[in-house]
Formats: sequence, C-alpha cells, structure tokens
Amino acid sequence: MRFLDAGETHGKALIAIVEGFPAHVKIDIENINRILQLRQRGYGRGKRMEIEKDRVTILSGIRNSFTTGAPITLMIENRDYENWKSFMDAMQCDVDTKKVTVPRPGHADLAGCLKYEFDDARNVLERASARETAIRVAVGALCEELLKMFGIKLYNHVVEIGRVRLTKSYSFDDTELFEHALSSSELFCIDKEAEIQMKQEIDIARQIGDSVGGVAEVICKNVPYGLGSHVHWDRRLDAQIAQAVMSIQSVKGVEIGLGFEAARRFGSEVHDEIYYDDKIGFYRKTNNAGGIEGGISNGMDIVVRAAFKPIPTLYKPLKSVDIRTFQPAEAAVERSDICAVPAGSIVMRAAVAYVLANVLIERLGGDSAKTMLETFKRIYNKE
Amino acid sequence: MRFLDAGETHGKALIAIVEGFPAHVKIDIENINRILQLRQRGYGRGKRMEIEKDRVTILSGIRNSFTTGAPITLMIENRDYENWKSFMDAMQCDVDTKKVTVPRPGHADLAGCLKYEFDDARNVLERASARETAIRVAVGALCEELLKMFGIKLYNHVVEIGRVRLTKSYSFDDTELFEHALSSSELFCIDKEAEIQMKQEIDIARQIGDSVGGVAEVICKNVPYGLGSHVHWDRRLDAQIAQAVMSIQSVKGVEIGLGFEAARRFGSEVHDEIYYDDKIGFYRKTNNAGGIEGGISNGMDIVVRAAFKPIPTLYKPLKSVDIRTFQPAEAAVERSDICAVPAGSIVMRAAVAYVLANVLIERLGGDSAKTMLETFKRIYNKE
Amino acid sequence: MRFLDAGETHGKALIAIVEGFPAHVKIDIENINRILQLRQRGYGRGKRMEIEKDRVTILSGIRNSFTTGAPITLMIENRDYENWKSFMDAMQCDVDTKKVTVPRPGHADLAGCLKYEFDDARNVLERASARETAIRVAVGALCEELLKMFGIKLYNHVVEIGRVRLTKSYSFDDTELFEHALSSSELFCIDKEAEIQMKQEIDIARQIGDSVGGVAEVICKNVPYGLGSHVHWDRRLDAQIAQAVMSIQSVKGVEIGLGFEAARRFGSEVHDEIYYDDKIGFYRKTNNAGGIEGGISNGMDIVVRAAFKPIPTLYKPLKSVDIRTFQPAEAAVERSDICAVPAGSIVMRAAVAYVLANVLIERLGGDSAKTMLETFKRIYNKE
Amino acid sequence: MRFLDAGETHGKALIAIVEGFPAHVKIDIENINRILQLRQRGYGRGKRMEIEKDRVTILSGIRNSFTTGAPITLMIENRDYENWKSFMDAMQCDVDTKKVTVPRPGHADLAGCLKYEFDDARNVLERASARETAIRVAVGALCEELLKMFGIKLYNHVVEIGRVRLTKSYSFDDTELFEHALSSSELFCIDKEAEIQMKQEIDIARQIGDSVGGVAEVICKNVPYGLGSHVHWDRRLDAQIAQAVMSIQSVKGVEIGLGFEAARRFGSEVHDEIYYDDKIGFYRKTNNAGGIEGGISNGMDIVVRAAFKPIPTLYKPLKSVDIRTFQPAEAAVERSDICAVPAGSIVMRAAVAYVLANVLIERLGGDSAKTMLETFKRIYNKE
Repeated sequence: MRFLDAGETHGKALIAIVEGFPAHVKIDIENINRILQLRQRGYGRGKRMEIEKDRVTILSGIRNSFTTGAPITLMIENRDYENWKSFMDAMQCDVDTKKVTVPRPGHADLAGCLKYEFDDARNVLERASARETAIRVAVGALCEELLKMFGIKLYNHVVEIGRVRLTKSYSFDDTELFEHALSSSELFCIDKEAEIQMKQEIDIARQIGDSVGGVAEVICKNVPYGLGSHVHWDRRLDAQIAQAVMSIQSVKGVEIGLGFEAARRFGSEVHDEIYYDDKIGFYRKTNNAGGIEGGISNGMDIVVRAAFKPIPTLYKPLKSVDIRTFQPAEAAVERSDICAVPAGSIVMRAAVAYVLANVLIERLGGDSAKTMLETFKRIYNKE
Repeated sequence: MRFLDAGETHGKALIAIVEGFPAHVKIDIENINRILQLRQRGYGRGKRMEIEKDRVTILSGIRNSFTTGAPITLMIENRDYENWKSFMDAMQCDVDTKKVTVPRPGHADLAGCLKYEFDDARNVLERASARETAIRVAVGALCEELLKMFGIKLYNHVVEIGRVRLTKSYSFDDTELFEHALSSSELFCIDKEAEIQMKQEIDIARQIGDSVGGVAEVICKNVPYGLGSHVHWDRRLDAQIAQAVMSIQSVKGVEIGLGFEAARRFGSEVHDEIYYDDKIGFYRKTNNAGGIEGGISNGMDIVVRAAFKPIPTLYKPLKSVDIRTFQPAEAAVERSDICAVPAGSIVMRAAVAYVLANVLIERLGGDSAKTMLETFKRIYNKE
Repeated sequence: MRFLDAGETHGKALIAIVEGFPAHVKIDIENINRILQLRQRGYGRGKRMEIEKDRVTILSGIRNSFTTGAPITLMIENRDYENWKSFMDAMQCDVDTKKVTVPRPGHADLAGCLKYEFDDARNVLERASARETAIRVAVGALCEELLKMFGIKLYNHVVEIGRVRLTKSYSFDDTELFEHALSSSELFCIDKEAEIQMKQEIDIARQIGDSVGGVAEVICKNVPYGLGSHVHWDRRLDAQIAQAVMSIQSVKGVEIGLGFEAARRFGSEVHDEIYYDDKIGFYRKTNNAGGIEGGISNGMDIVVRAAFKPIPTLYKPLKSVDIRTFQPAEAAVERSDICAVPAGSIVMRAAVAYVLANVLIERLGGDSAKTMLETFKRIYNKE
Repeated sequence: MRFLDAGETHGKALIAIVEGFPAHVKIDIENINRILQLRQRGYGRGKRMEIEKDRVTILSGIRNSFTTGAPITLMIENRDYENWKSFMDAMQCDVDTKKVTVPRPGHADLAGCLKYEFDDARNVLERASARETAIRVAVGALCEELLKMFGIKLYNHVVEIGRVRLTKSYSFDDTELFEHALSSSELFCIDKEAEIQMKQEIDIARQIGDSVGGVAEVICKNVPYGLGSHVHWDRRLDAQIAQAVMSIQSVKGVEIGLGFEAARRFGSEVHDEIYYDDKIGFYRKTNNAGGIEGGISNGMDIVVRAAFKPIPTLYKPLKSVDIRTFQPAEAAVERSDICAVPAGSIVMRAAVAYVLANVLIERLGGDSAKTMLETFKRIYNKE
C-alpha cells in the first residue's frame, strides 16, 4: 500500500490517493467524518476550526460502501477557499496581497523559501501547514476500517500539556477510559483533575500571547504478533512508526513503550519476561517494550508517544527578518491555535493506523480482505 | 540512493550494496575502518569485540580510491565464522547443537519465530542481532566521505548512561570536545566527571548481572539549508532521520533539537528567532529546533538524540518459555555486553549520515560529485 | 518524482497526484487540455468521445500558473457521471442493474474477478478501462511543460493500422510533418495515401463488426545525453520506458530504435558510428539505437514504438462464460471504438514524457526548475 | 521483494542482495549453478566463457539449504580478477594501461563517460557489460526455486538468429521440447533444421568480422491467475515484465503473446474466447494474449519474446572518436562473442522469474513459503 496526499491550507481541497488498499472492506464514511471532527476539536483551538467542519468526499475506489481494490481517492474541500480563490487560483491570481515576506520562526517558511527559491513564504506555508493533517487523518481512518476487521483498534489520548503531566496510572486494557476521554474531555485526557490543570496551562499561554505543546499517546489493541520484520532496517515496525509519527507537523520526539525511560533503568527492569497460557498462548505481565521487539510486533499492545512542540504562530510576535530587505521585522501574527496537542493525538493515531494496515497487508497479501481474513484466522488459529 | 544490507552474526560476512552513490568521491578505506573500530570500543563491551576487529572489503563500485557511480559493495568478514561454519553453512550444517528454543525477552526471538514459523530462534537472532550494525556503520562512513566534500561533518557522543546524565553544558560549535571524547573517552563522554559516574553505573550493572542503557547524541555541522522537504510527509528530513535511528537495535526513542523538552516549554521559549548578517546570511541565536523546521534543514546544526534500552541479554537470566514444550524456562545467557550505548552512538551517526547523503543527492542531482559540488557552490554562493 | 492516479470510467472523476514536480514551472492549462482533446480524436472512435470532452482541473500545487514544488493534483471530471451515479455511488447504489457477469475476452474482467473475488466484472472493468489513460495523458502533458524548458519536445504519430503500414520514409528532424499530422490527419498519419488505406482498414473492421489495432511511434527531440543509467537494471532508461509504455491498455509490444528489426541485421548494419563536430559535439549519422545505448540517452532522438492490439470489445460478440452459472454466454457488446491507435499514440507520448521528466529531475536535482536550468546550461555548455 | 546487484566485469565479484525472499524455501545451489552454466554456453560465444565457469557462493540468508527470511546474498567470483587486480583494485591501481578513450558504438561508453564525467570508458564499460547478467541469472534461478513450490516452471528457447527464423510450429505444452533444446542444442533451438541454418548465420558473421542478434522466447507454465494488477499502471504484470526484460543488455524490443503481430490482425482473430470445464475451470483454446489480460495473469501460459541486437563489439572495427582529442579513431576490438542470444534467453528467463516471484509474494504474503503454500492451495482449491 502507498499513498500520496496533496493540497494547500487555503487551496480548493486536500486530496489523497491510497493505492493498494484491499477489496471488500466495508467503509462507513461517517466513521471517517467522526474522526475528522475529533481532529478539529480540543481546548485551545482557534476560530478556523469552526469554519472548516471537514467532511470527506470519496472520488474513487469505493462502490456501494465496499472497496474494490482500485485506488481510493479521498477529498476534503476547504470551505474557506471561496475567500481565498483570488489569491490562490491555479491559473491566475493576485500574488501580492497575501505575500508573506517575514518568515515565521518554527515554521518551514525560511528554509522553504531558500530551498524552492521563493520570496513569498505563502508558497511554502500553504503546503507546510498542519491543515494537511486533515487528509492524513482521513487516510488513517480509512485504514482503521480495515484494521477493525482483524479486531485491531487504536486509541489516542493526551498525557502532557506544557508543564502538566498526567500522573494517574491507567491500564492499556481500560479502553473505555480512552473512549470516554475522546467523547467527553476537551483535551482527550483520561483524568479530570489533570485536565483542569492542563486547561489552566493553556489559559496561561493564551493570556501571555504564547502557545503550549505536549505529549500524546496512541495505544493499539489486539495487534497480532509478526507485523514488521527484523530482517531489514527499513522494514522494522518501530522504524516505520517513528517515520510516520515524526512526519507530523510539530512533532520533535517519538518513543515506543518505555521510550526514554527505558534508557534510565536496568535491563532486568525493562525487558518483558515471557509466559505461556493454554488459552491465550504466549503473553507478558509487563509491556515495557510497547509491543515491539526486534522490529516485530510481539502480540502485546503497541504504545507510542510523541512530543509536540508549542505551535509556532504566537500572538506575541517573534523576531525575524524580511527576506527581501534583510531588515529585522516581526513575524506575522495569524489567527491560530494556542494548543493543538489533542488534534495532534488524532493525527498520530492516523499515522500509526496507516503503518499497521500496511504491514498487515504485507504479511497477509492484500488483494481481498476476505482472503486476508481467512489467512489471518488460519495463521492465528482464531476460527 | 538506496542500500540493502545482509548477513548473520555468525555467518560468513556482512554485506551492503549501496546503489546511486555519486561518482568521483574519493574514498579512504581507513576512514571507514577507523569508524568501524570505534563501534567496537566502549566501556562495558564484552569479549566478542576483541574477536571481531572489523575491517571492510570493497567488492565493487570503487576504483583507484574513487567511486565510479556503479553500486558499491562493502563486505565485513566475520572472523568468528570458522568456529560456526558447521552450524551455519548455507547448504549443509548441524542445526541441532546451537538450537535456541527459549526466546529471550527483549529480542526478536519470540515474535520472529512465530512470524517466520521457526522452532529455533537461532534462525531469527542471527539476523536480528546488533552485529548487523557493523555494516550499517560502514555504509554511514562511506556516506561521510561524500558529505565531507560539502563541509558536512558529524559528531557523536554519549549524554546518559542509566541514571547518570551529562549535566555540563557545551556548545555544538566545540567540535574538538566531541573529537576528544571519541579518541580518549571509553564512553565517548565529553565530561570526565560524568564519565566516571557512568562507568560506575556500568560497574554496578555488571556486579548484579544486569545491563544498562543510555542516551546518545549526534550533531551534524555545516548542513546546508534546504535538505528534506515540507511537501510530502515521507520526504520530511526529521521523519527520515527518525526512521533511520529508530531502526537501530535497542533504540526506543528519538528526538530532534529540544525533543520532549520542547513539549514542556512555552512557544516563546522554543522557537528560534531569525536574524541576518551580511557575512553569514540568515542565522539564529538558539537552535532549539535542532536544525530542522517544517521537515527541512534550516542551516543550523542538526541535533538528534536516541534512547537505547539496556541490552536484553543478561547474566541474571530472564524468565521465558520453551517454544517446543511451552514449559517455563530461563532465557539463555550468552556472552554479551553490559552496555552498548557508545557503540550505539556510532551507529546513530551512520544512520544519520546515510539520510543526509540521500537528501543531498536528491537536492543536487547525484551522478557526479564534481557536478554536485559546482551546483552546491552556485546555489549557496560559496565560490 | 512519482505519481498515483485513480478513478473509474463511470466514476465521478479521474485524479492524479504528482509528487516531486519542481517549482517554478510555468503551466499553461490549455496546453494540457489540447493534448487531452487529441486523445479523444481519431478516426474509428465511438460516440463516448463526444460525451466526454475532457478538461483538467487543478486542485493543488500550482498557483498563478507556476508550480510551487508541492504535490500537483489533476482532476478530470466524468461528464457522464450523472447518468451513472445511481450505479456507482461510493456509499449506496444499485449494483444489480449494471452487473457484468460475462467476462469479455481480452479484458481484465475474468482475471480481475477471480483475483479480487468479485462476481461482477463491473468492479474490475470500471478501473481497468482505457478511460484511465485520460489522466495519464494529463500527467504527461504536465511533464511536457517541464521538458519544454529544456528544449525537449515529443512527437507522436501512427505507423501501422491493421495490415496497412506507413511505407513513406521520413526524417525524425521533420517535426513539422508530425505536427501537421496531429492537427490535420484523423489518424495522426504523416502520409495522406497511407491514411486513406488505414481508414479503409478501419471501415472494413466496422463493417464486419470487428476491431483493428496498429503501431504508434513517439519521437523525443533534443533529449540531452546522460538520462537514465547503466549502473542498475531498473534505472535503465529503455527499461523505464518499456514499463511505462507496456502499462498502457492494449499494448502488447514495445521497441526502441530499430527494435525487432535490429535482431535481423548484422552488427555493422545496426550500431551507430560516432563522429565529432566542433559546433555540435559528438553525433551520429544514423540512429538505429533510438537514442539509448547502455540504458542511457546518447543525445540522439529517442524513438519508441508500441503495438496496440485491436480493441477487445467487438460488435460481433466473442464467446465467454457466465461466472455465476459457468454456462456459455456471449460477451457484452458495449458502445465502443473500432480503433484507438491514434489515441494510444497520445498516451504513449505521455508515458514517455513522464519517464523523461523523471530521469531529468534525477540528473539535475528537482527542487526548482530555475536551478535545474542553470545546472543544465552549465553541464551542457549551453549558456 | 527487491534486489540490488553490483560488480564489474573484471572486478572481484558480482554480488546481489535479495531482500524479502520468503523463509522455508529449499534451495539447491546446484540448480542455480546449472542455470549459470547454461548462460555461458551457446554457439557463437567467445573464449571468455571458458575462463569464467561461474559458480555461486551464498553469503547470507540460507542455512542448511533453507531460506530464513533474511536477505540472501549471492556472489559469483570473477576468476579472471587475478589478471586484472592491478588495473581494477579499489584502493590503488594502474588506471592508464587499460584506459579506453575511444567509445564503442552500441555500448554505454560515450553516454556513460559524458554523464559521469570520465575520460576513460573503462569506468563505464566495466559495469555496463553484459557480464552483470550472470548475477541476475543467479537471482532468477533463486526465484525459480520458490516458483517451483507452486508448480510454476519457466522455459526459454531461441526463435530467431539474424535472418533465420524458427518456422516449425510447436505447442507451449510440449515442455520436453524446450528441455531437450536446452540440454542438446547449442542454440537452445527446438528445431534441428532451423538450428543448422542459424549456425550458418553465425558462421557468416564470424567470417566477415561481424556479429548477429536474434529473438528469444520465454514460456511460463502453470502461472496462476491473478498475479499483477489492473488497478495501477506500474503494478501491471506486463509492464513489470517489459521493464525487467528491456533492462537486459542488448534488448531493443519486448512483446507478450502475439505482440506486434496482434496489431496486424482483426480483433476477432486476437482475443482468446473463454470456456469453462468442470475439472480445469475457466480456460481458453487460444493464447494470443500470452497469459496476461488487463495487466493480470489469466491462468494461461505467460509468453514473452525479446529482440536482442547484435553484439556491438565487432572484429571489423566501427568508426568512433577519441574523447580526449576529438579525432576520429577506431573502436577497440576486444575479445568477444559473435552471438549471445542463447545466453540472452537465459537472462530473460531470470528476469521474468524475478517478476513472477515478486507478484506471487505480493498476492500471497511473503513471510513463510509454508504459509504461502497453504494460502495458495486454499485460494486455488488445489488441496
């Protein structure tokens, strides 16, 4: 499986083509829209979220709710486009009015202008914007429709906002907790108390014209052993997940299982001893590895965390330089979010879902989900 | 550019084919061997390191010290192979004597046996072993020969071992510090005092039959702006680095620049403001981004850190299960290292070097390093 | 550069995302539409061509007529979709009325149904249809906009229809001949007399309810030496062209330069001797190699020919079997063309244009067409 | 699955790494060696063939005759290397004595020197040489070991040499005919009379200091339906085969089934009508499509033909130019073959075997051949 996505933040639409998706997967478009809307929620989002209300349109590859094996095209139209058409039209438009000549620190603006030889960061930021993650979420949600057939489910929640950390302990098996957080917490936080403090952290940032980042976690349940491979570096499951997650706008760190904490413990406190039970087969009492050993899923939950830096568009402007005059200038203050970590957790989940769907197809052969399911049951004795 | 590598830990040899490497790069094989030997050093290594003394053989793609544009084959022969030939021969061998039926926690053993349908983890561990990193280091060292032509240099050092952290502050510009650590510190640690404590941590682990992990850092100097791209998720430089680094055996976390710390600060404390100077062009006074913004190198040093879990082969055996009988058993205690973080830092450097060489070629066109250099000078006005 | 395309013949739209296309290429959308319309012309086409009148919509990657380096999305809406919506809707539709249970020989129908486990060839033929070539033509036309900046031009014409062969000799330098054929011959044939006979061949086929194939040729002028590479099999230019051309619906053979004729001559009658002239550099007096030696363009015109089988949908129905009952049945007689070779020649040209653009980018680095052009001039001394 | 190969014609060795090959395939190295030796046979070969006597060494990925899922390294040492060491050594060698400054028409020499900026075609020809096909044959032979498990067998023979064509008709089912040709005909020709004439053609070429090409055919038996896919151009089986075959040195044309002949017939004479039989399922009475419809294998034999141009190194030297002085000169006359089409047919077979193995893995999932076989039997009801 592979996908390409395209689209600018103020362009006509965001589009993805997903090639190699198996036939016979039932797709409920409302499941995709539901996850898209979760991406737009979250305490600390700006006003644009109210404008967008993303919904996906399917242009190909699905017929009467079932995939056909043909490439699937997902499109999210930008409702804001009408206001931007005269500045963004493909063939003829006003490129002066919305020119951005003062690159914003923390964004692709400066490096992008230099690389692509632009004197207008508009041509960079339109594509570099985290708006692009909407379509990646749609792709991930599509992949979840496949994963679901195999019992694989993904959960996302927020574990840190700025200086506030979730301290309450929780079991990865307590999936209702995660579901509840998604439906009822503005920060996708499983702990009410922590959530209050996190909101305060966001409020502080808002008051001082600043922004705030955080850490999100994705948990994948019922992942069968044997996805990914130890045989070649670029096929390792953890490596593929790291690439997908680090590619998300604002992510500066990724960890799996204990992650950095594993580096600070003795080996005997890290490695998950192996047990066997007639009913469930091999199992572990701990899951410090986060479900991946030697680049292969080991049958335990896959647990990934990512660090999101604070949103770089601040109301308190950062110092920069005009790229035409080389004179000091202040970076533009655009309408923006204060905190996007809840949204980021949804994007992470999508990124991980895509990787899992991909390695599942690689393992089982991906022409038809019907055959995949039969092979799956046979391999894992789950008839 | 692309590469495949192959080889088992007790097999004949480790081999890599690097395809798409530019012509006209002068290769000093001793530079590669020097880095290979650094990988074998480090306080806390076991005795195997003394056996191996890796040296690379070049089988193709280089003639009279210059690359020809043809695929380059690097080979590291396993000196230990003679002792293992009768257990590892491709065509006929004794597969019983060295059978491993008790999978070791923390390794690919169990998941690998289940995935590939083996009842002998030998067939998995031989490939999953960190021994494979030797050839990846050779590939990285080859890439450094190219990067050097463009002034790009990589440094690696160790910043944490177990519970001990390097607290001394240092400048990324103080490259002599890193070079000195590499040549004179058994832990590639830039601070003598921290090194002493780190060694103590390793000694404790050795005494209790345990192992210890840590954190390593790679710094890339003189990386030109414009490598990688914001336009597509899988071309983002940080994503590519994360994949390469997370694919290293034992790595459980990767971070760039401030990394997880960025999630805990306000935006105004994170983003690197932009300045301009007639002589040096655009610059920053801070480098919290670690040299990458929007998935593109921004001209600042690229800074990557990775968390290495403790080595999973302990002298104090971990609990496991025999995969033939499903009865509890103790994981094998093989000759092993106590701590491999210094070696890991060398592998990290190699992984990052490969990614940088790749995006440099993508940016400049990669037929001939001569043309690349001319294009480079023209683009960056460095005549 | 890479692209994915998607879309069904009676679906909403055909879509392509082209990733890795350089910035700063001026795109005239009417050039793309003009080539799209050429694909729809040709003596022997059925009535659908009148319905479609394809026009491309650009959804991303181009702003004010210039590419930005971001992925470019091209879309061609199917005007026929309104009539098919109730049978093709992604979420809910009538899948019975348009069911195709008798696979048509010569199409993907049977193999596709078996592979993807369908009892309705509609789910296969909608994607397998040559309708898909419309979007590939758009991608190729986009690539021609880039190639044009480097002086590279492509020409296509038809050299055989059924049993009629173009016998008139012509020079590849006589580009007006090809241009004239494109604008004034219904069969893109450079010889009036041959064209008359070719039309007769098509008329015969029409009268007997049959179809007819042919051979088309693409000539690429001003291709610089050095595209593609001898160093690895899958980077050879001829191999890449062969893949792209053979992937076109109905193509059963591809040849470069003399092609199969080369196999029937002595070596001294085949190989193009090398000469040198102070003004033009190295040159040949013959071009039997078709511009490619050792997998690399040699500076001469690239000449490719492809054999198109007759269209498999006949008015005189072919024998087949109902896939539900396994009883003999006649393959459906759908509205169709008698001959699609002229259209095929346009698709071939697009396929070759994509490959050339790709290897040009690989050779020069593909961030910005401005830099590419400077590098090009420097390498080829064309200031 | 993917593979990279490397090595120069007078270098130490040819090497290939095959990544993604399934575990549990039994490999008989003598089968590979047997096919390697077939490549070296054939009426019209020069003396070098006697020097080489290729044998493969396995450096990784196979243990006790079974694959382990790890990357497989194949190596063929060049026995001639000792004589060339002083001119080819990677680190230090005499680059003057064997300098080639007059590029040979029909080879990569000129384009390669210009592309890679060499004034010595030695640096190009060493890699561009058809010697490289030896390792590709080894890779193909390895793939045949996998294909064999699924009943898939490949046959190759020669159908044209220069102006002589095999006119005797034959059935693709008469596999003994092909086997017999391979073991007893110096030209892998199934017809004794044609072979005599073909040899005469080669003798004529030898006498006049010329060379001669021809056409070879590969037939794949028992290929299951459903390999490759219609859903995306680059996944079409015919396109993949065309790429692999056209990438072979000297190939200038590729055709599948009727190939170019299909373009010259009416549709009703081309398309293979569909029948059904309770025992064998769907079948055809003709196989003009060569086993592929819509980019997917249709269960019939896959039939591919390729045109090989005459070997470009002639004893009667061709005109060329010295690339240092730009003065006319004669191309070097090296020890060479007169005709290499029989060898070429072996290389073709290997190229096709690789593609088939690849699409088989894609269809069935490729971790373990044991699971593949179970899935295969289930899908195709062949228990």
